[in-house]
Parts: sequence; C-alpha cells; structure tokens
Amino acid sequence: MSSADHGSRRAALRALVRACGLDAMLVTDLLNIRYLTGFTGSNAALLVDAADGAASEDRTVICTDGRYLSQVATQVPDLPALIDRASAPALVRALADAPRARVGFESHVVTVDALSSWQEDGPELDFVRTPGLVEQLRMIKDEHEIGLLRRACAVADLALEVLVDRGGLRPGRTEREVGRELEFLMLEHGADGISFETIVAAGANSAIPHHRPTGAVLETGDFVKLDFGAQVGGYHSDMTRTYVLGVAADWQREVYDLVARSQAAGCAALLPGAPVSEVDAAARSVIADAGHGELFLHGLGHGVGLEIHEAPGIGALGAGTLACGAVVTVEPGVYFSGRGGVRIEDTLVVREQGPELLTLTSKSFAIV
Amino acid sequence: MSSADHGSRRAALRALVRACGLDAMLVTDLLNIRYLTGFTGSNAALLVDAADGAASEDRTVICTDGRYLSQVATQVPDLPALIDRASAPALVRALADAPRARVGFESHVVTVDALSSWQEDGPELDFVRTPGLVEQLRMIKDEHEIGLLRRACAVADLALEVLVDRGGLRPGRTEREVGRELEFLMLEHGADGISFETIVAAGANSAIPHHRPTGAVLETGDFVKLDFGAQVGGYHSDMTRTYVLGVAADWQREVYDLVARSQAAGCAALLPGAPVSEVDAAARSVIADAGHGELFLHGLGHGVGLEIHEAPGIGALGAGTLACGAVVTVEPGVYFSGRGGVRIEDTLVVREQGPELLTLTSKSFAIV
Repeated sequence: MSSADHGSRRAALRALVRACGLDAMLVTDLLNIRYLTGFTGSNAALLVDAADGAASEDRTVICTDGRYLSQVATQVPDLPALIDRASAPALVRALADAPRARVGFESHVVTVDALSSWQEDGPELDFVRTPGLVEQLRMIKDEHEIGLLRRACAVADLALEVLVDRGGLRPGRTEREVGRELEFLMLEHGADGISFETIVAAGANSAIPHHRPTGAVLETGDFVKLDFGAQVGGYHSDMTRTYVLGVAADWQREVYDLVARSQAAGCAALLPGAPVSEVDAAARSVIADAGHGELFLHGLGHGVGLEIHEAPGIGALGAGTLACGAVVTVEPGVYFSGRGGVRIEDTLVVREQGPELLTLTSKSFAIV
Repeated sequence: MSSADHGSRRAALRALVRACGLDAMLVTDLLNIRYLTGFTGSNAALLVDAADGAASEDRTVICTDGRYLSQVATQVPDLPALIDRASAPALVRALADAPRARVGFESHVVTVDALSSWQEDGPELDFVRTPGLVEQLRMIKDEHEIGLLRRACAVADLALEVLVDRGGLRPGRTEREVGRELEFLMLEHGADGISFETIVAAGANSAIPHHRPTGAVLETGDFVKLDFGAQVGGYHSDMTRTYVLGVAADWQREVYDLVARSQAAGCAALLPGAPVSEVDAAARSVIADAGHGELFLHGLGHGVGLEIHEAPGIGALGAGTLACGAVVTVEPGVYFSGRGGVRIEDTLVVREQGPELLTLTSKSFAIV
C-alpha cells in the first residue's frame, strides 16, 4: 500500500487558505491534524503558513507536548516540531513576530475561551473564521485513504461471515452477546478498534433505527439487524445487514425486497456531480411508491473516513453534489413500529465509472 | 441505591448563576446536561432559568430532537421538553421574549461559530462567559454518584481477580490478548462499557507511562502493568496494578516497594482542605528522597466521575484544595526507560474521617 502524502494535503489546504486572502491557518482539530501530518497524539496544533508559495512549507510547524517527543519525530519527519504543552498558544506566540498577519482558524471547533486567550497572546494578529476548510479536503479521499477504508470494510465483512458461519445468530442468545462477539471478531481479524458501538436489534427492536443492544433474547422468526464497523489506520467502515431467524413470514420477505430495491437505486445514483438530494430521492422514491415513505425515518447516508459520520450528508434537504473520491454510505430502512424493521447499508466510493462497493457481504434475503 | 436528585443539582447551579448576576444559563455540554437532568441522548441543550427563586424551576427547559421524544419524557419527567433538532438555537429563540436578559454560557465548550449564530438569533440577549460552573459542582460527588463509582470500581476489581485466578497473566500471551480479556471480563461482570482503552504493558514497555497494548509477548521476569477501568451508569473507575511474571529480581522488589510507599503517602494526604500541590508533594517526596524524582514523569492523580479525567487535577503545579466528596486517583509511578516501570493507582473518596478506598484489589507485591 502507498504511504500517505501529507505534503500534498497541506499544499491543497494552502491553496484554500490563500484563496481566502489569509497568511496562515491555525489547525487545532486533532483529526484534521492527523489528516494533514499523520500525527496521532492527543495534544497538537498545526500552523500552516501560506504567505509565500515557495517557502511556506518550511515555515509550517506542528506543536505538541513532551510526551510525544519521539512520536512526533517518527510520524511527522517532514515538519519542524515545537514542544510545548499549550500547543496552540505556543504557535500563536510564535506568530507574534508577524504582526497584523491574517490567520484563519477552525471556528466550528475552537471554543470562545480559546479564541479569547489567543487574542490576548497575539493582540496584533487578525483571527479570521474559516470553518470546515480541512473537512472540505477530507471529503475527497485519495487512494491511500481508500485503501485503508477497503481494509476496514474487509475486516467487517470477514467478522460477520465468521459470526454467521459459526451459528452466532441463533435463538436464545441476547443482542448484547451477539454484539460483543461481533466486536471481538473484528478485533481478532485486524481491526484497530470498532467504529461505534455495534447495533444488534432483534424482533420488534429492529424497528428502532439506532437501538442499543440489550439483554433481549433472539427468537425464531425475528428480524435481526446488525449495524457495525471496524477501524483500520484511523478509517472507519460502516455496514448494516438484516437477517431473519429460522423462519420468514411473507411480510418480512416483502419489506426486505422493498428496502433492497431502494438501496440498489440509491447506489446506482452515486455518480460524480449528482446532487445529494437526488441520490436520496432515488432511494426514497422506491419506498414512497410502495406507500411506506413515512416509515423511512432518516437520511439516506453520510460520508465515512477518519470519522464515522462526516461530509457529505446524503438527505432530502442536503445541499451540494457528489465528487469523485467521496466515500459514502447508502442505508435506506423501513421500520414498522412494534413489529420490526429492515435496513441495508453499504459503504461505497464514488467513481467516474460508477460506484465501487467496499462492503462486500451478500445482500440477498437470508434466513439464518 | 438512592436515585439521583437532579433538582438539587439544578438548584445549586441556579445559586451560582445568580451569584454571577445572570438571569439564566444555557448549558450545552452533554455530560453537564446528563448531570443536571439524567438525559443521556446525543443532542440536547438545557436552559436553566435563575431569574426568580420560586418559579425558576418551572421555567427551566430541556430541548432535544424527535429521536428522543419518549426517552426525554422517561429520563427527565420533571422538566418540560422542547423538541427541535437545533436544540440550543431553539432555546435561544425561546428566550427572545426576555430581551436584554443576561445569559451565561459554557464558553469553554461553545464554539466561536455557535456563539455567533446565537447572537444572530437573539440580538437583544447579553451572552456572558461562565466557563466551568457545572464542572465546579461535579467535583463534589453526592452519595448517589459515589454509589455508582463504587460499583464501577467493584466491577474492575472482580474482572482483575478473575483474570489473575484463571491464569490470564502468563508468559506467551500478548499484551493485546490480555487487554481484550480484561475488557471482556469487565463487560461480563456488569460494566456498561470500559472507561478507556486498557493499558497492558509488559517488560520494557512497562516503563512507558501510557503504552497502548501491542503484540508484544509476556515473558518470565517481566513487570506487567495493567491500567484499566469500568463504566457503570456513566461513572468511571480507574485502577493500575503492576505484577511480576514468574520470578522477581531484587530491583523489581525495590522499585515496587518505593512506589507502594509513595502511593500510601499520597492516599494518606487526601484530606479535606489539603492543597492539591501538597498531596502531590507527599507522594513525590518519597520517590525524590530515594533519588528517583526525575523518573516520576506525571502528576499524582485526577478527579474521576462522568469523565475519566476531570477536576481536580492533583499535580505539583495544581491550584486549589480538596473538598469532602471529591473522588480522585492517586497514581505515582517510577519508570526505568528500557527496563521497566511500576505504577500503582487507586480511586478514592475524600472524606472528613479520611479517604475511602473504592478500588479494593490488593497492592501487595505479587508474583503471578
């Protein structure tokens, strides 16, 4: 697998910062710093100089504290590191040499108190709100990132296959037992961590979109909905499958077929340039045409990457269009309160030639 | 066990808000909202009215979105609930009837963008920075909270006992295997979740204060350091024990004894009114007197509660004193780089009659 090209990512940010008419940007969101440098410590700030094209990379500095002295040297060999426990203030003070500099900051994550203290540390600096610039870059994944997402999805696929093959989904077990086993299997098969607390929802609970696993016992005839993911190298997978236990009723086959057709329509609509609201509509209209539009209670999907939920959101009220390299979920659901529900979810890459499926577990109707 | 008295907590906050000369406080930190109301959903804001003593509880409102309609009614039966996806802005707009109201907000967690949007929604309101008010209350635990902390610590004690009794710490296993088993045992024995990723550090790795478990194999003669905790009802336990595998060398007995004496001195210093810097010094001086002061690389401890790390910090540079009902860790360590290290950590309640130990696992030198 290729290694991450953090320098190119910083160059892309620099272009955005310059386009905003700024001299530099102070990045303090830890995931954004990880994206731009590879650093994974729990305390850091990054000053991205943008004042001059040629030398700006040389004046870009990461700051962290003494615990990470060797880690920052290993993970970020291409940038100078300042060691200071108060990482962002240290970079602000370092900037005080450049009075009247216009400095962008992540106003969507920086607190009111933090900005106020920076303004005291650098009274001559002009702090400018620039929310979401790095997140905008993160929306489009490079092939290194897609490689990690592919591995995360493969781990989840494998864990579910092992769980089903060994009879892990059977009457008498609790939702909680199934969830823990699935999480254990992901860790066993190469996950660095889980993406989020696994959803296992059996019987009537499957009608609750984001049910937390309980001591409820799986019974013959239940829908069992599993929504789960693995983390690899910081990147998340996200997949939902719904099975029937033992014996399926006709209504279960019907609702499953409906959700599967909606999901296929949503995936087919994942094309570069497609407005996200139209992707949502492509899947939603299948369910609405069957008369169940009001039972599809949530948006169609979301971006996945260093966060389990990130831009772009795919919903009826969403703005913007899909771009090549976006990695998103497609996850319609139909929920009959008190009876049960079905959701089917994949993670896919938007590609010029049509979407690339990363979660490969079969979506055929299955009785286990 | 008693139930939580959220009304009393809100009354205590109201007194602080009034003392700041404010009419109301907008609470948006989710843990603070949980503390003040019992609500555990992922989207909420709470407007605590403080304008008038008698009726202010009646004008206190929680806001969350439609997903939590039934949950908020169950968890917060004593407050009216507003249902709006944009929870804080909805409460700001509801306040617009009270022009020129002075409204405190959590400036240490509210982002620059959020405040800016509130100011647009309520241009007549005077938003006043009041960082850390609820955290100040949370420092002193009530008996309901101490009950949950006691249970969390008991789960961790039991999990470690089972792990050791079944021979879970033995040469040939990896740090990662041990960590997963310990986490699994906590969940099996009543934890709602783990407090943080379990630290298992064997051999030379035990000299790294916050080592993440790897595939490193446990070997005879190793120190094995375990730092872990369980969550019960939202409250965290935190405990570290260090064992020797199979055969102990003299230097290992000596460093263990040193850290144990330091830890006992730190615990003995946990008295109401004690400056936190003096508590740190009581433990640190034992290690310094033995000539190893520079090997004790971190602060002595921290508060534990709804967060694994919360106020008060106990360190050489810490300000403030301990109060009755504070729940803190005492965790000195001595780390010989490349050879191994020892940390011993308990969670304790500061009490008038002397500290109450919550983590009950033996701290005697033990070869396993």
